[in-house]
Amino acid sequence: MKLTKGQKLIFIGDSITDCERNRPAGEGLFGALGKGYVGYVDALLQAVYPELGIRVINMGTSGHTVRDLKQRWQEDVIERKPDWLVVMIGTNDVWRQYDTPFIPDGHVYKEEYEQTLQALIAQTKPLAQGIVLMTPFYIESNAQDAMRATMDEYGDIVRRTAEQHGCLFVDTQAAFNKVLEQLYAATLAWDRVHPTAAGHMVLAKAFLKEIGFEWDRA
Amino acid sequence: MKLTKGQKLIFIGDSITDCERNRPAGEGLFGALGKGYVGYVDALLQAVYPELGIRVINMGTSGHTVRDLKQRWQEDVIERKPDWLVVMIGTNDVWRQYDTPFIPDGHVYKEEYEQTLQALIAQTKPLAQGIVLMTPFYIESNAQDAMRATMDEYGDIVRRTAEQHGCLFVDTQAAFNKVLEQLYAATLAWDRVHPTAAGHMVLAKAFLKEIGFEWDRA
Amino acid sequence: MKLTKGQKLIFIGDSITDCERNRPAGEGLFGALGKGYVGYVDALLQAVYPELGIRVINMGTSGHTVRDLKQRWQEDVIERKPDWLVVMIGTNDVWRQYDTPFIPDGHVYKEEYEQTLQALIAQTKPLAQGIVLMTPFYIESNAQDAMRATMDEYGDIVRRTAEQHGCLFVDTQAAFNKVLEQLYAATLAWDRVHPTAAGHMVLAKAFLKEIGFEWDRA
Amino acid sequence: MKLTKGQKLIFIGDSITDCERNRPAGEGLFGALGKGYVGYVDALLQAVYPELGIRVINMGTSGHTVRDLKQRWQEDVIERKPDWLVVMIGTNDVWRQYDTPFIPDGHVYKEEYEQTLQALIAQTKPLAQGIVLMTPFYIESNAQDAMRATMDEYGDIVRRTAEQHGCLFVDTQAAFNKVLEQLYAATLAWDRVHPTAAGHMVLAKAFLKEIGFEWDRA
Amino acid sequence: MKLTKGQKLIFIGDSITDCERNRPAGEGLFGALGKGYVGYVDALLQAVYPELGIRVINMGTSGHTVRDLKQRWQEDVIERKPDWLVVMIGTNDVWRQYDTPFIPDGHVYKEEYEQTLQALIAQTKPLAQGIVLMTPFYIESNAQDAMRATMDEYGDIVRRTAEQHGCLFVDTQAAFNKVLEQLYAATLAWDRVHPTAAGHMVLAKAFLKEIGFEWDRA
Amino acid sequence: MKLTKGQKLIFIGDSITDCERNRPAGEGLFGALGKGYVGYVDALLQAVYPELGIRVINMGTSGHTVRDLKQRWQEDVIERKPDWLVVMIGTNDVWRQYDTPFIPDGHVYKEEYEQTLQALIAQTKPLAQGIVLMTPFYIESNAQDAMRATMDEYGDIVRRTAEQHGCLFVDTQAAFNKVLEQLYAATLAWDRVHPTAAGHMVLAKAFLKEIGFEWDRA
Amino acid sequence: MKLTKGQKLIFIGDSITDCERNRPAGEGLFGALGKGYVGYVDALLQAVYPELGIRVINMGTSGHTVRDLKQRWQEDVIERKPDWLVVMIGTNDVWRQYDTPFIPDGHVYKEEYEQTLQALIAQTKPLAQGIVLMTPFYIESNAQDAMRATMDEYGDIVRRTAEQHGCLFVDTQAAFNKVLEQLYAATLAWDRVHPTAAGHMVLAKAFLKEIGFEWDRA
Amino acid sequence: MKLTKGQKLIFIGDSITDCERNRPAGEGLFGALGKGYVGYVDALLQAVYPELGIRVINMGTSGHTVRDLKQRWQEDVIERKPDWLVVMIGTNDVWRQYDTPFIPDGHVYKEEYEQTLQALIAQTKPLAQGIVLMTPFYIESNAQDAMRATMDEYGDIVRRTAEQHGCLFVDTQAAFNKVLEQLYAATLAWDRVHPTAAGHMVLAKAFLKEIGFEWDRA
Repeated sequence: MKLTKGQKLIFIGDSITDCERNRPAGEGLFGALGKGYVGYVDALLQAVYPELGIRVINMGTSGHTVRDLKQRWQEDVIERKPDWLVVMIGTNDVWRQYDTPFIPDGHVYKEEYEQTLQALIAQTKPLAQGIVLMTPFYIESNAQDAMRATMDEYGDIVRRTAEQHGCLFVDTQAAFNKVLEQLYAATLAWDRVHPTAAGHMVLAKAFLKEIGFEWDRA
Repeated sequence: MKLTKGQKLIFIGDSITDCERNRPAGEGLFGALGKGYVGYVDALLQAVYPELGIRVINMGTSGHTVRDLKQRWQEDVIERKPDWLVVMIGTNDVWRQYDTPFIPDGHVYKEEYEQTLQALIAQTKPLAQGIVLMTPFYIESNAQDAMRATMDEYGDIVRRTAEQHGCLFVDTQAAFNKVLEQLYAATLAWDRVHPTAAGHMVLAKAFLKEIGFEWDRA
Repeated sequence: MKLTKGQKLIFIGDSITDCERNRPAGEGLFGALGKGYVGYVDALLQAVYPELGIRVINMGTSGHTVRDLKQRWQEDVIERKPDWLVVMIGTNDVWRQYDTPFIPDGHVYKEEYEQTLQALIAQTKPLAQGIVLMTPFYIESNAQDAMRATMDEYGDIVRRTAEQHGCLFVDTQAAFNKVLEQLYAATLAWDRVHPTAAGHMVLAKAFLKEIGFEWDRA
Repeated sequence: MKLTKGQKLIFIGDSITDCERNRPAGEGLFGALGKGYVGYVDALLQAVYPELGIRVINMGTSGHTVRDLKQRWQEDVIERKPDWLVVMIGTNDVWRQYDTPFIPDGHVYKEEYEQTLQALIAQTKPLAQGIVLMTPFYIESNAQDAMRATMDEYGDIVRRTAEQHGCLFVDTQAAFNKVLEQLYAATLAWDRVHPTAAGHMVLAKAFLKEIGFEWDRA
Repeated sequence: MKLTKGQKLIFIGDSITDCERNRPAGEGLFGALGKGYVGYVDALLQAVYPELGIRVINMGTSGHTVRDLKQRWQEDVIERKPDWLVVMIGTNDVWRQYDTPFIPDGHVYKEEYEQTLQALIAQTKPLAQGIVLMTPFYIESNAQDAMRATMDEYGDIVRRTAEQHGCLFVDTQAAFNKVLEQLYAATLAWDRVHPTAAGHMVLAKAFLKEIGFEWDRA
Repeated sequence: MKLTKGQKLIFIGDSITDCERNRPAGEGLFGALGKGYVGYVDALLQAVYPELGIRVINMGTSGHTVRDLKQRWQEDVIERKPDWLVVMIGTNDVWRQYDTPFIPDGHVYKEEYEQTLQALIAQTKPLAQGIVLMTPFYIESNAQDAMRATMDEYGDIVRRTAEQHGCLFVDTQAAFNKVLEQLYAATLAWDRVHPTAAGHMVLAKAFLKEIGFEWDRA
Repeated sequence: MKLTKGQKLIFIGDSITDCERNRPAGEGLFGALGKGYVGYVDALLQAVYPELGIRVINMGTSGHTVRDLKQRWQEDVIERKPDWLVVMIGTNDVWRQYDTPFIPDGHVYKEEYEQTLQALIAQTKPLAQGIVLMTPFYIESNAQDAMRATMDEYGDIVRRTAEQHGCLFVDTQAAFNKVLEQLYAATLAWDRVHPTAAGHMVLAKAFLKEIGFEWDRA
Repeated sequence: MKLTKGQKLIFIGDSITDCERNRPAGEGLFGALGKGYVGYVDALLQAVYPELGIRVINMGTSGHTVRDLKQRWQEDVIERKPDWLVVMIGTNDVWRQYDTPFIPDGHVYKEEYEQTLQALIAQTKPLAQGIVLMTPFYIESNAQDAMRATMDEYGDIVRRTAEQHGCLFVDTQAAFNKVLEQLYAATLAWDRVHPTAAGHMVLAKAFLKEIGFEWDRA
């Protein structure tokens, strides 16, 4: 287990992270961490490693792209001084290109995405003990699908960024692909983007594996 | 134009037809016909053929399959004595097999779908001047997609049923396929099932073409 | 078709344009363009000309007169840089003279109306590829009716303004008059001002005709 | 003053009478009589003739035609044993012919209107001390307007019925016509049907005059 | 009739005037003038004197004392330039002394009441054609009741103020006393302060009499 | 203290007893007993005599008269088998005669009141260990006030009934009269009927005194 | 893993099971299974064993005791034909003895609890492939606490019942006790009864362990 | 009785004091003082000592610690000039250490608690006639319980502070302990912190005893 006693773990991202978390910060009362994978991670950490006392904070915001994260990075990440930071962003950067193609203001293309993500991670790496980068994903089994193909390119950017900065890396698309061998996309997400409870558990499990969580620790 | 003065035109189907129509019957005040293609059809008929005085009634109900239509057919179709009847059903019959695959109670497989649809049309054909059968559709351009492939099979059943009973036939999947050459699926439907306004206009236009509507009549 | 690929088309006006559009700008998700003729125009453009990718934005605001448009013109029109601009204003300018005659503060008389409209168009004409001016209207078949007569005078001002500035022109009153030969006013509008769905389709059709839209393009 | 101490006065009609009255009977607490002319009549009777202790009950129901009144006449009129009964009905009987002309189920044509009204009054006249028949009205100054002309015919039926059965008679259309000489229709009613406060006061005054109310009694 | 064509008539006071009027100013649509006597006055003026086109504005605010009126006098009275001004204030000035006797901050005693009222009227008299001062009242028939006795003293101050400044004067307590000879207080007001519809009609009638309103003008 | 361990104590009455109690029975969670004197009695019994474990149930219903109690007596009193029963009824029996004098259906005059109360007590006395009868009251210090005088007559009926059947008796009017020597009626009740928190405490204290409650028990 | 492909797994219990599940049956859309441990179990099964297609149904109902389960057992368990049944009941049976000790109607004492549970399991054992009995629990580390001690006795009844009928058995109290060594009770439950997300994960994990779930299956 | 005629008595604290009091200050209409012990104290003072006219103001705020009181002390205490001040604070200072142990930002440890409380009392003692300090409490009978033990330590700080500054002192824990001999904790508080009505009466009684209140004064 890479986390140690009393550490603060911040998640930042879009609606998949947000899931109706509390404002201004997603921590505290039952439900404060939202209904998604962040809440699952917190529940699993506390249930299995209660002696560690990990403080989990959810700073996801629905609809956000990496451009929006940049705007609030100082306040929502730097000033909160995380020991560990987890970033999963990019879904909306891609999705807006496909669901509202006529409104280019909302599109974040690859160059801007990569530059912005790189800059944020470079700034933050020295300040935290560890950073975990999770790819965005698209719950569609057909790799030739146009939006899936684009999402995979954004995932590659995340992978490269993680490698360059020595971050932990979670390939969420790979995790979903494995389940998609058994289940049709609509079983896991109404719109191929927002996962069901099972889909959020896939995310939680993929993250926890990367940080060395053991379900059956003695 | 196949409709004549003072005729009553009933639409029946699922949520794509329903679109928040009035209860018990979708007719009357502004909005009574719902926000979908039925309302567009009514608006276009009244704006372009005001002298015909066509009475449009929306009897769609969200979530319904052909099994549900059978339960309410006597009350919602037969007793309302339509001059023209339009049926578009099958989306949920297929979708439940893919979004909740573990709950077979909600699945309507091909045999039941075909038998039920045939029986309803056979019973009703002698009572109305005309029946229009519209295929269900799936707003997914990949014809090899599992759910799209199944939906196409249901569409074939509709086509055969129309031929056997001498009904007018609207291939909604073909209408969407043409637009999908230009636009990604997510532009036309959040979940590949419920169309945007543009998607509903595609449906309205496909229906109107079949009944001989002329936009630019002298 | 006068619109070309990727152009931005802004509608501005009063409640007949607004129809519960999104704020601050009426564009984006299903319903963002409101329930009125602007939404119909957008749906028809996207369904019939999907390859053009026209971006439609609804900036109508309920209750507004030309005096109100002037206040927000810089922000809502100029700064949004439309390729095409559509203006339909004047209903409230006239209506307040007839429904609250004792409150002159809310009346916009002909002189102010003409001067303001002229100034706005003069300022904007050089900035956009095209401007479409639509008359206000009153869904009343009796041309001797006092309010109808006044509305016709405002319509004449719109016509003159269009001619002077080389704008496209849509005579909405004429479009309604044609339908009023068949239908009583109350069938098209509860209050002779806010159209039903059919009335909004009359507006959409009149606009689309002026810009060269073809329903049955090959 | 034709009303005497302790009498019960029931008003029955449609939305113009109803005006959000209490259910099941419109009497009692502040607001129980609704926001319309019935509440004004009650307030004026109690303020000017407090010693009479007139009990006013509002049994109007929005949307009703004379056909609906017939259904509830036994329960809402006969069993409540009024000393005086006031009937104003017909607006919807006519209006539905003009706002939803394609839905004939909701139309109540002249023959049915006259027969039904005659039968109800014939049945009730012997049971009450007095009956007041008020015409329906249409707040439109143009007597050639189609709906106004029809409404006038229904008003004539009310007049004839009153004469045949010896009822008091209130010509509400005449009362409005007098005000319409000064004010445009929209000042008195949003939709030419539902009066403003001033319009309701016109109705109250016309009724009170017929029963001998004196504003300035010594 | 003392009012002449096109004049503006402003009412200011407390909850008895307010009655859920519109904000910021109580004028305009149906209901904008509130459910109380101001709405009745407006309806009666418009119904009986439609040719005068009197503009009535309700500026009452629930809970206010004369101390509160002073705070908003410039904005709500002076800047609105009334031709006629009607003031009815004092209920809360007195009531707070009796319902929350332990909270003296909310009490406005006689000296402050008289001084403030005098100053406001002195400032405004030269600016308007006429001012009508209405006494506060307490719907309690027992003149020895402590709160009634105090209210009568405040009424005397209003009378004196009216005489000194040449204002029209309405003795609302006297108007209620006459009705209280016939009806118990609870019939006219739940709490002896907020009148029923009948009580508001008593107020409207008392006011109208003072300005020369004739119900039965030829 | 007359109550003994484990006894069940039922209160029945009108809105003064009800105070938003739970349905169908007012017992259980915080707030279940309502915001009035019943809740205070329960809180005081439990705080001062926790070892007795008295079960308090509130069966008051807003608006009820003794005529209504008779309708629900079997279900709400007899079948619940109280050890002690407390009855306070009569306010609405009297109030309706004064606030809606023209609607005699709602009035319960003295004869009916006395007969009904007597019958209910006679039926129930043998079934319970004790019955406490509390007078209705009117928070008005002027004993010559018409409604106060009537209420006193109903209070006398309660006193006689208590004497005849050997019930405990609480003179709530006397309890209020003592406080009214210090405070004006409006301080204790908005409408002279529904007490403030202090007024409810007056009721609780009067009741508790009668059953031998000691605040400072050793 | 004891569950096999396509099996139906029903959970029944009280509010800890319910957690705002859908009605009438807790299955289907995202959130249908509630926010508690049942939803976690379903998500984990689907994420880790997607090929099994286990159908999970939540039939918990807030506030229920074993007495309530008996009333609905036929409809909610027998007729739904589970392959596996999970029962966790008893919290309210005990809690009502401690939070509303004066209302014995709501208490279910040990004898009734044991008899009823035994009868339900005896009836159902032959009909299902497997039954899992989970103890009720109380999140209080002090075993001498009165309510904890009683809850432990009910847990012993569950253990005995499981042994007698050959059911799987989950000792939830033991699972919580282990976490309570690290965390104070209030960290896991606001009221020592309704767990936080972490507490629900403790339940899910304890259940999954008993049925042979492997988090890290190859 | 230590309070004298016309004095102002301010309560400040956390949610146990707040109980949905009015904002900005908890005084005035029925319910303004909240549903807790402050409202009971006010009701009892007014019912038993009406001639004193004590003005009670509730300034409790849910969730507050002594750190929060310090922030608003100038505005909420000093500027309101109380004759008597009552302080009960500390519950949240302790509770946050036990219900969200991983979020140290919200914990107020003993040193800060004592220093802050001392400073506030030292500043205020000279300004008021009297100050009453009430301990925080925890409704748990087991004195070895970790949170109870900590709460007792905070109670000791309150006691010492009261002694040093000559304040009146109320040991609320002792008051609850006495009742806990008879009742289990859950009967008095769902979460061992927020009392039921009975628990609030325990608080009110403990406070009133300290200021010399006599229930049965002659």
